[in-house]
Amino acid sequence: MASTTPFPIDNLPYGVISTVSDPTPRCATALENDAIDLSALERDGFFCSVPGFEDAVFSQPTLNAFAALPKSTRAQVRDLLTKHLADLDTHKKYAVPLSAVENHFPMETKNFSDFYCSLEHTQNCTEISNRAIPENWFYVPSVYNGRTSSLRVSGTPVRRPWGVFRESPSSQPIFSPTRRFDFELEMGVFLSKPLPPGEILDIQNASEYIFGLVILNDWSARDIQMFEMPPLGPFHGKGSGTTISPWIVTLEALGGSLCASTKVQDPAPLHHLTWKGAIDEATFDIELEAKLLRNGKAYVITETNLNELYWTPYQQLAHLTSAGEGLSVGDIFGTGTITSARTNSDGENTGIACLFERTMPRNALGSTKADGIVYLDDGDEVIMEGWCMNRHTGRRFGFGQCSGVVVPAKENAA
Amino acid sequence: MASTTPFPIDNLPYGVISTVSDPTPRCATALENDAIDLSALERDGFFCSVPGFEDAVFSQPTLNAFAALPKSTRAQVRDLLTKHLADLDTHKKYAVPLSAVENHFPMETKNFSDFYCSLEHTQNCTEISNRAIPENWFYVPSVYNGRTSSLRVSGTPVRRPWGVFRESPSSQPIFSPTRRFDFELEMGVFLSKPLPPGEILDIQNASEYIFGLVILNDWSARDIQMFEMPPLGPFHGKGSGTTISPWIVTLEALGGSLCASTKVQDPAPLHHLTWKGAIDEATFDIELEAKLLRNGKAYVITETNLNELYWTPYQQLAHLTSAGEGLSVGDIFGTGTITSARTNSDGENTGIACLFERTMPRNALGSTKADGIVYLDDGDEVIMEGWCMNRHTGRRFGFGQCSGVVVPAKENAA
Repeated sequence: MASTTPFPIDNLPYGVISTVSDPTPRCATALENDAIDLSALERDGFFCSVPGFEDAVFSQPTLNAFAALPKSTRAQVRDLLTKHLADLDTHKKYAVPLSAVENHFPMETKNFSDFYCSLEHTQNCTEISNRAIPENWFYVPSVYNGRTSSLRVSGTPVRRPWGVFRESPSSQPIFSPTRRFDFELEMGVFLSKPLPPGEILDIQNASEYIFGLVILNDWSARDIQMFEMPPLGPFHGKGSGTTISPWIVTLEALGGSLCASTKVQDPAPLHHLTWKGAIDEATFDIELEAKLLRNGKAYVITETNLNELYWTPYQQLAHLTSAGEGLSVGDIFGTGTITSARTNSDGENTGIACLFERTMPRNALGSTKADGIVYLDDGDEVIMEGWCMNRHTGRRFGFGQCSGVVVPAKENAA
Repeated sequence: MASTTPFPIDNLPYGVISTVSDPTPRCATALENDAIDLSALERDGFFCSVPGFEDAVFSQPTLNAFAALPKSTRAQVRDLLTKHLADLDTHKKYAVPLSAVENHFPMETKNFSDFYCSLEHTQNCTEISNRAIPENWFYVPSVYNGRTSSLRVSGTPVRRPWGVFRESPSSQPIFSPTRRFDFELEMGVFLSKPLPPGEILDIQNASEYIFGLVILNDWSARDIQMFEMPPLGPFHGKGSGTTISPWIVTLEALGGSLCASTKVQDPAPLHHLTWKGAIDEATFDIELEAKLLRNGKAYVITETNLNELYWTPYQQLAHLTSAGEGLSVGDIFGTGTITSARTNSDGENTGIACLFERTMPRNALGSTKADGIVYLDDGDEVIMEGWCMNRHTGRRFGFGQCSGVVVPAKENAA
């Protein structure tokens, strides 16, 4: 079981669930094929011995109250869960099959920002548009703000958005459903500690502010996005939906999957963005995959790894606060599309983390790709997964799925 | 009194206050020189006759619950307030002098977007940077998302932000406090009605979603902003603070100040952005002023009017939802800098709504301006005001002040 489930006992991610028999959203963890109802464990006094634990933390409809507890308190809750849930009777008593729960968006989120930090992705995107990489890219992790109202939990259908764009360079702009709907494979980082406005986070303390990670799909309408971007950046092109996997894998669980970055940063980062921890703890070794289900057939589009980003999540977080914006519990940032340069035995780039990059001449346009996939059709489902290894125990664990089906655009919106 | 106060009886804006004797934030209205404690009126049963009014709406620390009530319910509350507060004994019984209250940010806000919709501002900004206006500008109201964590209420000091920029085109990027700190005179529009994700707002219904307006100062660090913008738009350059005036002037109060736009839109807007209401109700006639206090001296920098924007607030709102992002009660959007082409008798452009535009050669660089003002110094205070006239009654009313003092950057953040 431990090798096939993303949720062995050494993962214990957090999420928010409801069931048909109890439709009240409440906090849970995932263990093998079950959700474990943490509000029930809480009611039965499992955590009352933990100093700093507060009443009714897990009966809340979001994880914010739990995430805001001191890190040491959360660590003791994790220890207790590890101990008690190893007992099969306890596990079964509080279990609901994962297939029988509805997952909810797990945190109340005030701020959502999204980065653009894969060198391979940036090189491909700028090459398509015949532009150079902007000079700022190598000095600061490039980032924009999204709308929290676009955030969705895995399984929520994503409606093809309307927007304004030109069908061809010579035609008049129209308001129409997007014709170039795409996904972007990213990870999302949830925060657990507030930073007052005006303060600046020292990168050495960045891990203190991170609750955990999820997989994130930044759905993108390329025609809308390309028309709207100059000079204020993406808005509607990214506004139709951003989907996350439902279970937040904690920084504690990921402690055994820290690793060195695969990239050399040149020029060297400015002091406030320079990683000061151990070299082999600079980022996370998380293998990621995106596949597309079309007409009952699965196509693997992307195989990549979080550790291939040019700017690490810790550097991104340090950058996020540098003008004194402050942070709130429940804030999330996306790492940006994680494209890898890896190739298969045919020399094809299998690390491309969105369909837009596949349209590059040297990546072979859709029409010449054997799979015939160019952009997303209505009915397509995009499924992302992430797996890692605890290097201390040698055991695999993962994030579960981040999925969404494309549903047709609203009719007659023009 | 009615001619000098922004808050005569036909205004009745909403805000959130606390006092030394009662530090609990609660809802209030402003009348002449007083705040009227609406939670006290509510407790005393003033609104119990209003169908649809809910208990404890005004004792909340934000206006979200009140704003979310049906428009007809809010209209009846307004009628009751107008009737009862005309009685001087009632007025005095519930009054606290405005000088004795602390104002709080009045709504809980999930999404904050900011537009770029003044043609004069856009022409000036693109001329400074030797660029053309992007082709999208005339087809969609240009917009980016901000961070809700940057929002502040008037009176909150704004700390000079750190950021990454080049001191000169040939020097290496540094992380340093901004040297080009600026204001932008805008208005903010608060929303009172949710729109589910995936839906698209019909511009004919836009007014149903607006709670009211405030004055908004989009503090901007120009060196940080210019370095970071390509291609994702502004982030830290706008992240250090966005200040609003504390009293939300309702759409009901502004009903007598509707007017035609002063601009002809060419090309004609796409259908979903075309105003379908009365021509003389397309936007709002609100006179705006920004002045700077430096070393005890006041300098009027800007005189402009909301009706000079190219894209109106209703068009902006219709655009905001067009990819199905949805809206939440308490969301706010900024109209963008409202620059006017108006000039004084010396031919100087007195309608410039930020300092950046004053650095244009044809607007005379700071050094040649008599006032010697180039960018904001520590200790400078920016004060914005807005006034309008009820065209039915001929009475003036206004927004009060939106102010903030620039305080020195945090030390040793690099």
